[in-house]
This record gives sequence, structure tokens and C-alpha cells, in this order.
Amino acid sequence: MPVGAPSRFPLAAVRGVRLGVACAGIRKPGRRDLVILELAPGSRVAARFTRNAFCAAPVAVAREHLAAAPGGIRYLLVNTGNANAGTGARGMQDARACCQELASLGAVAEQAVLPFSTGVIGEPLPVERVTGGMPEALAALDAEAWEAAAEGIMTTDTRPKGASRRVRIGTVEVTVSGIAKGAGMIRPDMATMLAFVATDAEVAQPVLDGIVARAVDGSFNCITIDGDTSTNDACVLVATGRAGAPAIASADDPAAALLERAVHEVCLELAQAIIRDGEGATKFVTVAVSAGADHAECRRVAYAVAESPLVKTALFASDPNWGRILAAVGRAGVPGLEVGRVGIRLNDVVIVSNGARDPAYTEAAGQRAMAAEEILIAIDLARGAAGATVWTTDLSHDYVRINAEYRT
Amino acid sequence: MPVGAPSRFPLAAVRGVRLGVACAGIRKPGRRDLVILELAPGSRVAARFTRNAFCAAPVAVAREHLAAAPGGIRYLLVNTGNANAGTGARGMQDARACCQELASLGAVAEQAVLPFSTGVIGEPLPVERVTGGMPEALAALDAEAWEAAAEGIMTTDTRPKGASRRVRIGTVEVTVSGIAKGAGMIRPDMATMLAFVATDAEVAQPVLDGIVARAVDGSFNCITIDGDTSTNDACVLVATGRAGAPAIASADDPAAALLERAVHEVCLELAQAIIRDGEGATKFVTVAVSAGADHAECRRVAYAVAESPLVKTALFASDPNWGRILAAVGRAGVPGLEVGRVGIRLNDVVIVSNGARDPAYTEAAGQRAMAAEEILIAIDLARGAAGATVWTTDLSHDYVRINAEYRT
Repeated sequence: MPVGAPSRFPLAAVRGVRLGVACAGIRKPGRRDLVILELAPGSRVAARFTRNAFCAAPVAVAREHLAAAPGGIRYLLVNTGNANAGTGARGMQDARACCQELASLGAVAEQAVLPFSTGVIGEPLPVERVTGGMPEALAALDAEAWEAAAEGIMTTDTRPKGASRRVRIGTVEVTVSGIAKGAGMIRPDMATMLAFVATDAEVAQPVLDGIVARAVDGSFNCITIDGDTSTNDACVLVATGRAGAPAIASADDPAAALLERAVHEVCLELAQAIIRDGEGATKFVTVAVSAGADHAECRRVAYAVAESPLVKTALFASDPNWGRILAAVGRAGVPGLEVGRVGIRLNDVVIVSNGARDPAYTEAAGQRAMAAEEILIAIDLARGAAGATVWTTDLSHDYVRINAEYRT
Repeated sequence: MPVGAPSRFPLAAVRGVRLGVACAGIRKPGRRDLVILELAPGSRVAARFTRNAFCAAPVAVAREHLAAAPGGIRYLLVNTGNANAGTGARGMQDARACCQELASLGAVAEQAVLPFSTGVIGEPLPVERVTGGMPEALAALDAEAWEAAAEGIMTTDTRPKGASRRVRIGTVEVTVSGIAKGAGMIRPDMATMLAFVATDAEVAQPVLDGIVARAVDGSFNCITIDGDTSTNDACVLVATGRAGAPAIASADDPAAALLERAVHEVCLELAQAIIRDGEGATKFVTVAVSAGADHAECRRVAYAVAESPLVKTALFASDPNWGRILAAVGRAGVPGLEVGRVGIRLNDVVIVSNGARDPAYTEAAGQRAMAAEEILIAIDLARGAAGATVWTTDLSHDYVRINAEYRT
């Protein structure tokens, strides 16, 4: 059961982007598992990829193609059901073969295709099924098909994820729309599982690179479901320039800040949607650490709490077992932490002050706070001015069931 | 259901140590929850404690007393049901009050008592119940009561844990016996939840300090159930000197090495017993990393695999989803790892060679290996001569159930 309201569809169309979906039978028949995004000529593309050393073959190929032709990308090709990771030299050949086939069908260069795969790791990609589904997906290309595409990239997700913003640049309204998939193996390290965001603004490549980097750091890089960084994470930002708005040539252009804000909001909404639909999630949890000496130690504390199995099972049980939060703070490796000054709040309930149970705290108040579907864990380190926020879920029976049964 | 055979009781008695147990009703009535170990005068004591910044009050008091009188410790006082952690100044007073009462009953100095608590964090210690149980425990003191004491320190453990070794020093046989508790919040950082090991050898304090440090690093500090380091971890090593064997005055004495080996074996057997009885455990898993550049990176890889929820749920499902192992290796932060050289074995089945699925690997062979109750995950980094081994469990429905229901 996902937490909170689903994403609102339809998304606003982005001029210069069309999306097509097919059932290619990659892992199971009759399931939308192949998505193509067609980009207008002249679109610029920026991306962040996983830092997992075992990055998947499509990640390696996408990096290579993007480096060769960042202004020449015409297709994003996405399959689910198979991650094409841990597949060695054959995996690279398979990813290239898929790009070649789509390039041939679309009459573009092989480097104009960026491939993305998600699903089971370590099994050979069924290339003929991927290529066999391409004509159906190309025939379906439609500027309005964002919801179908959001469904087409799902694996264990229970609902499609999308977000849109509009922003005025000069006299022209431009659109930012994006879709993402998540559900498990989520602790992005540069980007999340898969997210595709597009705008019809016209943006110079260095500006676009900066926007995607900062937007990802402030959104997908602040979430965790299980602390496992995927081999296939990628977040792509496309700027088609087809809205007819004035070009954003420099990061100093005030329009750059406006657009960046819209992109950041779309990414944050997608990142939080991933958490709300995390495997087995019954809670949406914000861990906000404040008054730390620096951002890095605040992040360490936030992640130690957000990834503690004991905190997560207490959240699942709606049990205000705040001692587990305190224990996680204590092991996060903050040098010289004065535990006698630390404060912890659950929503508006002060549970710990000066490192021990607050005198006014009652178990009933704690239970009321923990019973909510959306919970803020606010941790005050009382030693500086830095802060960090991380979003996460609880750890439920369904998380174990989903991941124990994943391949069966 | 714990994995493998239970500990063998009775343990060999240690001359100079008597143990007494009582039902003090600390959390629930009718449960053995108070244990006293009485040490002969002149015993020497060495210990390692948790590095969690929020260490419990009894840990702080035990550290203080041990520093004041390492050669004058006469009682170890252990209660379950309440950890006396996150209890601030009152917790310190409560821990001291318990020591004072036992010191008074035993006619020793307050510093001669080391207190230990385990159980729920953040609730005040019911001091009167602890002190109220002391006469019963003192009346029960018996050199043969190791099994009762091992039961008395259990919390969510399903069975008592103990181990013994004998070793000849000069012409005299000395004994090393120990007990431990574990079950959850287990990723020791200097020591595990609670372990008490005693020998009747006579050992100089610096030699004893060195032995406990190395024995803990090679045993309790190599296990993880859920990656959560407890606020109350402690491992105590007692040397009563009552066997009548020649004193071990220096680390260069060959007898020091003999004794250290016996202590290490007892600690390792106890550490592995904790894993075998880990919360919800259905598998006993050894993660052995070899051919790394240094010990630290081997440990990082071993812990990344051992603590990955996705690897652990696959182990629970007996699913040879080795892609998850590979993904965990990839995100462990090994600088410059050549993924194309990495090898992974499950028991005797080679699953990954040169970074991809081994040509001879079959799913049937993988499934056979994963179906075993005891599983070796051997990871070859192919870049050096260092190694590290970590022991862990799977992540089962019962882990979630136990920890969601812990306080109810």
C-alpha cells in the first residue's frame, strides 16, 4: 500500500518530446515493458548515473554516447524486466545491438540512442524481444503519452510516478515534466533508479549539466529505502528548446534559476513519490537533522536513522521506541557529539531533550505521533548551523515478502 | 528457529567464579532476569565496551569502576528487561544505586561492582526490583550455574549460549568458559551485546587487556545481524588465578599465546552462536572476502554484502539472486575496483568469474547452494593479498515480526 496521494496525471506535454510504449514480453507476456522517448532534433541532454562500480552495460553505453554527442541524442530506449547488469562483454554487445536497431528504424546515428534497463541483474538481455517491440512503441509515439510511459518503466512499483511544473521565461510559458520508477534497491548515489525529465526550454549544455547535478543532489540523492545502490540508476534531463522561449545561455541568466527551481521541484516530487511507493511502505518518513557542525555529519546521522532496521520496524509497528532512534544517532560516527544536548522530535511531540526522555513526554503522545502515515523525525545535534534531510520508509512484512519472492 | 546445533552445556566450571540467578520481575514476572557473577579476591578483569556515543549508564559506570580498580572487581551484576540507556542523569544514579546495594550485601567497595543492563532503551530502571532480587541471586551462587546464568542474560534470544575450552599451562590445566547474549541490534563496535568470559589462569593486567582486545576484534567485531550497534555492548574477560597454574606475566610468555587462543575460540564460538540465534534467522552465513588490497576494504565489502537487505531477503528465500551480491560489492566503495576480475562463489558453486556469470554456472547449482542452512559467500577481489570474514544471517518475516512487536 503506497503512502499518500498518487501522482496527478495527465502531465503537461513537453513540446519536442513524444513517448511510445509496447508490450515486448521481455520477462512476462502482456506487460508494458518497453518505452521509447523521441526527442526533437537539437535537444540537449544531461544525465547523472549510478556510482556503483558494477554499473550495468546500458549505463556504460549511455555514458559513452552522451559524451560523444550530448547535443545529438534523439531517442531514450528503456526496458524493464532485465537490468542487463553483471552480464560482462555480452551485455555490452547486447546494449549496443538494441541501440543499433532503434537507430536503424529511426534513421539516426547509433550514438543518438541512450539505452536504459531495469529489472533482474545477471541474466542475458533478450535482445530479440527488445528489438521486436520497437515498431509497436514507435508507432505509438505521442506527445501526450507520459502516463503510459510512467507505467511502462515500472517494475515492483505499484503506481506510476510523474510530476509537472510550468514556468514563464520571457513571455513564453515553458513546461517541465518528468517520470520515475523506484520501489527497491534505493539509495541513489548520483541518481535514482530511472528518472526522465524534459523541458521545452532552450538551455545551453553547461547550464543544463549544472541544473541536473544540483537537482539530483537535492532530491534523488536524499532518499533511501533499503540502502542498496542500484547498478542501473540514471536521471536524465532533456531540454528540447521547442517552446520558443529565449535561450538560456548562462547560469547567470535569471531564467536559469527559475527553470532550475521547476526542475528541482519535479525531481523532489518524483523522489518522494518513489519513497511513498517504496517496497512494502506503510509510512512516509522525513528525517531532518539540524544544528550539526557540517552537512556531511548531518547526512550521516540522517542516513543512520533512515536505514536502521530497528527504527524502520518500530515505524512499521507505530511503536514510539525512540531509544532506537537515539541509538542510531549515537552510532553515526559524529566526532565529539555531546549526547547530553541532543534533542529529538516526532512530528510536534518532543521526545528527547538534553539527551534523555523529555520530562513532559508521554507514551500516549508518542504513540499518537507514530500512528500517522507521514512522520517527521527531527534531530537537533545542538552543535552548529548545518542541516540535512532524508526521506525514507518503514520496514514491513511486505518488504521481505516482495524481495523474497522477486524472481519467482 | 535458530540455525545449527545449540551450545553444549554444562560448561566447565572456572575456579574462583560463582554464578547466581534470580527472577526479579524487572519487566515481566517469573522470568530469570537478574544474574550475579562473584569473582574471587585478586581476580583481574579486562573489558571492551560499545563505541555508541549514547552508551548506557551502566556502561559508563562499569568503565569508571574498572579504571579505578581493575584488580579489585568482585561482582558483575547483570539485569535484562531494561537497558538503562537514554536515561540521562537519573540513569547514572540508578546504576550507582544498584552497585551500592550489591556492595553493601557483599561487604565490598562500590567500585568492586560492574553493572550491565540489556533490554528496552529509554525507560527508567526499576531499581527496587533489581535490588530486591539480589538476595535470591546471592543465595543461589554456585560454581556450576553457567547454564542458568546464560539463560538469565537472554532477551529475545531463543536459547542460551556458552562455550568452554581447556588449555595446559605448565603442568596445570586451566579453564576458559564464557556466556553471551545477542539476538538483535547486533553490529558490535568493540564488543557485542553482552559476553562474560572467565578463566582460572593467572594473568597480568596488560596481558589480559591485550588478549580481550584481540579476541573481541576477531570474533564479536566480525558479526552483524542488522547493522545496529547497541548502546550496551560489553565483553568482559575475568582471570581469577585460582587454578594454581604459573602466572602469565608477559605477552612473550608462550603460555600467553596458548591462553589467547583458547579465549579467542570461546569468543568466536559465542559470536557465531549469537548469529545462529539472530532474530528471525533461518541461515548462518559466512561472507569471506579475499585478495583485497587491504583489510579495511575487505571488511567494507564483507559488511556491504552482509548488511544488504536485498542480499538478506534473497538468502531467506533461498534464491540464488547473485546479482544482488554483485551490486553490494559494487557499492562498497573500493577505489579502482576492476569489476571485470571479481569472482564470487556460493559454497562450492562458482557463480561469478571475471565480473560476470560463470559460463559453467547453472541456476540449479545455485539453488542447491542457497538451499543449505549454512552458506559461504566467498568474494575474490583479485587485487591483493588481504582478507576479511564476517558472519551474518538472512532477513526473514520473523525479524520484522519480532522487532515490530518487541515492546508489545
